[in-house]
Amino acid sequence: MIEKSAVERPQQFRLTTFGESHGVAIGGVIEGCPSGLRINHQLIAEDLARRATGKTSSESQRREPDEVEFLSGLLDGVTLGTPIAFLVRNIDAKPEDYEPFKDSFRPSHADYTYQCKYGIRDWRGGGRASARAMLPYVVAGSIAKQLLAQHGICVTAEVSSIGGETDPSKMETLLAQCRSNGDTVGGIVHGSIKGLPAGLGEPLEDKFQACLAKAMFTIPAVKGFEYGDGFAMAAMKGSEANDTMTVQEGFVKFLSNHSGGIQGGITNGEEVFFNVAFKPIPTLGRGDRHDVCALPRATVIVEAMAALIVMRFMP
Amino acid sequence: MIEKSAVERPQQFRLTTFGESHGVAIGGVIEGCPSGLRINHQLIAEDLARRATGKTSSESQRREPDEVEFLSGLLDGVTLGTPIAFLVRNIDAKPEDYEPFKDSFRPSHADYTYQCKYGIRDWRGGGRASARAMLPYVVAGSIAKQLLAQHGICVTAEVSSIGGETDPSKMETLLAQCRSNGDTVGGIVHGSIKGLPAGLGEPLEDKFQACLAKAMFTIPAVKGFEYGDGFAMAAMKGSEANDTMTVQEGFVKFLSNHSGGIQGGITNGEEVFFNVAFKPIPTLGRGDRHDVCALPRATVIVEAMAALIVMRFMP
Amino acid sequence: MIEKSAVERPQQFRLTTFGESHGVAIGGVIEGCPSGLRINHQLIAEDLARRATGKTSSESQRREPDEVEFLSGLLDGVTLGTPIAFLVRNIDAKPEDYEPFKDSFRPSHADYTYQCKYGIRDWRGGGRASARAMLPYVVAGSIAKQLLAQHGICVTAEVSSIGGETDPSKMETLLAQCRSNGDTVGGIVHGSIKGLPAGLGEPLEDKFQACLAKAMFTIPAVKGFEYGDGFAMAAMKGSEANDTMTVQEGFVKFLSNHSGGIQGGITNGEEVFFNVAFKPIPTLGRGDRHDVCALPRATVIVEAMAALIVMRFMP
Amino acid sequence: MIEKSAVERPQQFRLTTFGESHGVAIGGVIEGCPSGLRINHQLIAEDLARRATGKTSSESQRREPDEVEFLSGLLDGVTLGTPIAFLVRNIDAKPEDYEPFKDSFRPSHADYTYQCKYGIRDWRGGGRASARAMLPYVVAGSIAKQLLAQHGICVTAEVSSIGGETDPSKMETLLAQCRSNGDTVGGIVHGSIKGLPAGLGEPLEDKFQACLAKAMFTIPAVKGFEYGDGFAMAAMKGSEANDTMTVQEGFVKFLSNHSGGIQGGITNGEEVFFNVAFKPIPTLGRGDRHDVCALPRATVIVEAMAALIVMRFMP
Repeated sequence: MIEKSAVERPQQFRLTTFGESHGVAIGGVIEGCPSGLRINHQLIAEDLARRATGKTSSESQRREPDEVEFLSGLLDGVTLGTPIAFLVRNIDAKPEDYEPFKDSFRPSHADYTYQCKYGIRDWRGGGRASARAMLPYVVAGSIAKQLLAQHGICVTAEVSSIGGETDPSKMETLLAQCRSNGDTVGGIVHGSIKGLPAGLGEPLEDKFQACLAKAMFTIPAVKGFEYGDGFAMAAMKGSEANDTMTVQEGFVKFLSNHSGGIQGGITNGEEVFFNVAFKPIPTLGRGDRHDVCALPRATVIVEAMAALIVMRFMP
Repeated sequence: MIEKSAVERPQQFRLTTFGESHGVAIGGVIEGCPSGLRINHQLIAEDLARRATGKTSSESQRREPDEVEFLSGLLDGVTLGTPIAFLVRNIDAKPEDYEPFKDSFRPSHADYTYQCKYGIRDWRGGGRASARAMLPYVVAGSIAKQLLAQHGICVTAEVSSIGGETDPSKMETLLAQCRSNGDTVGGIVHGSIKGLPAGLGEPLEDKFQACLAKAMFTIPAVKGFEYGDGFAMAAMKGSEANDTMTVQEGFVKFLSNHSGGIQGGITNGEEVFFNVAFKPIPTLGRGDRHDVCALPRATVIVEAMAALIVMRFMP
Repeated sequence: MIEKSAVERPQQFRLTTFGESHGVAIGGVIEGCPSGLRINHQLIAEDLARRATGKTSSESQRREPDEVEFLSGLLDGVTLGTPIAFLVRNIDAKPEDYEPFKDSFRPSHADYTYQCKYGIRDWRGGGRASARAMLPYVVAGSIAKQLLAQHGICVTAEVSSIGGETDPSKMETLLAQCRSNGDTVGGIVHGSIKGLPAGLGEPLEDKFQACLAKAMFTIPAVKGFEYGDGFAMAAMKGSEANDTMTVQEGFVKFLSNHSGGIQGGITNGEEVFFNVAFKPIPTLGRGDRHDVCALPRATVIVEAMAALIVMRFMP
Repeated sequence: MIEKSAVERPQQFRLTTFGESHGVAIGGVIEGCPSGLRINHQLIAEDLARRATGKTSSESQRREPDEVEFLSGLLDGVTLGTPIAFLVRNIDAKPEDYEPFKDSFRPSHADYTYQCKYGIRDWRGGGRASARAMLPYVVAGSIAKQLLAQHGICVTAEVSSIGGETDPSKMETLLAQCRSNGDTVGGIVHGSIKGLPAGLGEPLEDKFQACLAKAMFTIPAVKGFEYGDGFAMAAMKGSEANDTMTVQEGFVKFLSNHSGGIQGGITNGEEVFFNVAFKPIPTLGRGDRHDVCALPRATVIVEAMAALIVMRFMP
């Protein structure tokens, strides 16, 4: 049996999500949200807009209003501590766009694997494999960031490279090229968590970085994750890689942060930073409403996933 | 609360581990091992020898016999389906080696973070943060590999680079240099899982790659994980990265495998391959029984973690 | 940490519920429902009507249409294997009825304990402690019964006593008395599961009866649970209580079923039967739309909880 | 997938147990025990003696010394916060006693159901279905009681009836009769938890009483559970059953406790009390070392299970 025990302590901020990209609605249920938070709906709307448009020239043509309806867990806008259910209706879904793929498998999509697993799939769109399935994480992540801000914890993410380019103007040029060629391109998002207390994470099974990695690989198109100095440390000597500590006025102070704020799976109070690698979007050259690059829209998703992980570790 | 339900279906091959590196014993309990397997103890002993010695000149001087005692779950050497408990006594522990660190924190170790989290720590060695805490995973992983072999599934791992060098003789030279300089060095392990059926993994929360990533970041010193073409895909165009399918004699056949055998979180029947980046060992220059490089001993641990993940997804 | 493992096998038919009795809506998300089931919506509507009216003279005056809207997990009425979300809007809620209790605690309700736990409560009704919070279980249970019927498994429940009376006409008389006196009364529901295969349940932590008991105590007002001969066995001798087996035409046959179809936590293929004791409804004498007895409406809830448990144990 | 999240907060005091009654050893691993507790080994030994002998004339002839060896999680007798593993070797096992049952199924034992489930069973004794499988719960429960005592919480259990008799001298007479007749007899254990804070338990899935019930049904031979006024409330009127509250000097005070200290699944600060019904031991008339009544040895197990549940709910 799965559980060792007859009872479990409440876990904070568990998220259950539902919805196919072209079904009736997409949404989620947050269990274990602390009571007493007055939710700022404007911040949620801003995060949803970042997800929907990416705020750059590579933004998708799909323009869902993404109006969130809250169904439970709130009284006069304040959390009750009970499950918070919410949904967004899929009003802009155009299943006819997908009619050609009803009986075929698109390359490097999940059409084939869903068919293998379930014997049936929702051909009207990407179903649960669509990037739109991340929307409930963005809503929950936005609430999580509001809670974390009360503890002085700040989660951010930004595009650090596209197609290997790190210079913003060169990135824009590359995106324009891809758009005119009907091609797509991958990239890297850099994430940061500041203000974390020391002591979060578990020694073995639930190391902080292991949970963060799992959350990032939940995002579609993610192919790699590293934290601290990451893959570069595989080419380092120990004499270059260690983070020396001193004691200043009774407090431990780290003189460097190659480790990325985590030692032995447990946060040490320094900044946790990490990189997430995205493959190019597999849908090519259709000149349609699809993106040429997932990255601009992905930063708010990376923030959300990181914020959800931190919430779950908070005492 | 944590669980949505009053009951849980059995999960296969759950491992609970225990033991400090310099305590009485280290071991584990495997729950949900299928009944009827005749355990091959020789294969377990070989895997433990790989973990203890790494079979290379960079091997540790620590020579624990690592004799496994099985306490339950077996009848005449065959699994009963009940919990399999096992232990290895720590006969070679030398706490006096660690006496100097009783009241100080070693840099880039977990001494400081354990103290923050628990207010107490086992100063006699690395405690749960020691690489020795991986021993129970090697035992369980060895049994998992025996079960998977019955299904034609093969899990392997090998050192692909050390200190940035991929040529084996250059690796050896580098290790010798480090040893004479009292330095250490990082590297990369390449893992492979062949023979997997299509359909393993879940669409969102438990994508196959997400669980694999989490398992790898459970290993001490791991700083990065990528699968398929990994970080390289962040610099690719979609036109270079897609895996085209054809149908041959009624079966789907993939013409390339940039994806690394997984799409939408679910295996597609192709080889799953991945890279794991290790930082250098932080304990420097002590001319003592510590390794200059964790990599040779790490391959069997990477195999074990991967095998445990596959077992848990098997129907 | 909580989980022993980096990954978990899918559990069948997990239900997450949400909704306050007088909030916007009440509903749930079923994860792990097998794909390919064509849902019979008429059966769900009938079960919801049983919950809403109890089909007896003691029925509530509250008449919610309880229209279920399905949001995800279905394609042309067939389950996709992805999460099935559904909701029922609370159109008949009258928070003004509860205005007097905004600042006081009703006796033997959960008002006081919710206030202790969360520091805030939804005074507009029973919130999550309302019997209406069982509605999502009835919907999910109805789908579970449809799946179980395909395996020849039948779950039923009936009122076996009210206020200590087991004769139906005496029960009716007692209910009429209570109604005229502004009083309420408790009772016992008898449940039965027929057609179960042998082998369901786990030896220790998740014994079949333990999971069934936990599910029944999730229902509001339940104070006792027994299975097989139950509390009566506490007064029996071993010579009266044992279930002898014989072998007939190669099959094991039980000559009695004091055990109630379970031995050592595992089903033996005989009928599982049990009793659930309900306390009287604590809201007294208000001559309003509240019930005098929860029992007639509770049978469909007992069925639902039992069906959900069986679904989770099914291979 | 089972878990909604990529990470879980630590649950306090999770117990994993292992061991067949006639195998090498029996034991457990406690994860999530708070650090800093100096364990009182004498109290553990006393609880193990209660389990082994029951301290009455009906006590078993089996005299295991039940010496506990701790393998991990302690430094100089103080808990480190890491997993605490322990074992007791089965030195008194006599598999030859069970030789006759190697190829047959004992009535009302779990022999048949284990065979159905696993296709193999440990015929040398009761295996995991033996009452001896409760030993690790007694050890962990003893530690839990030590932790709870620091919070002023006291868990106790006592035999309240045997074979329907509540008078202690009549119970002794009945036990003597059974012994001379080669018969066995059931009974009821009454449990009590005093000093609990208000606010423990979850509104729906993990109601305090539901978790307590599940834990009690984990004990072999348990057939019924009730809390507060229990089954008697099924025959009550609401006017007899409600617990009125008053406010005295600013504190809520309950004038009665029919509810048994729990409302809406959440503790209200009053005593939690409950009854557990045991069937007679099924092994009859062998004049050997088996008990005629499980009850005297069961009280310490009931205490242990209750203490483990409380520990898991503690903040």
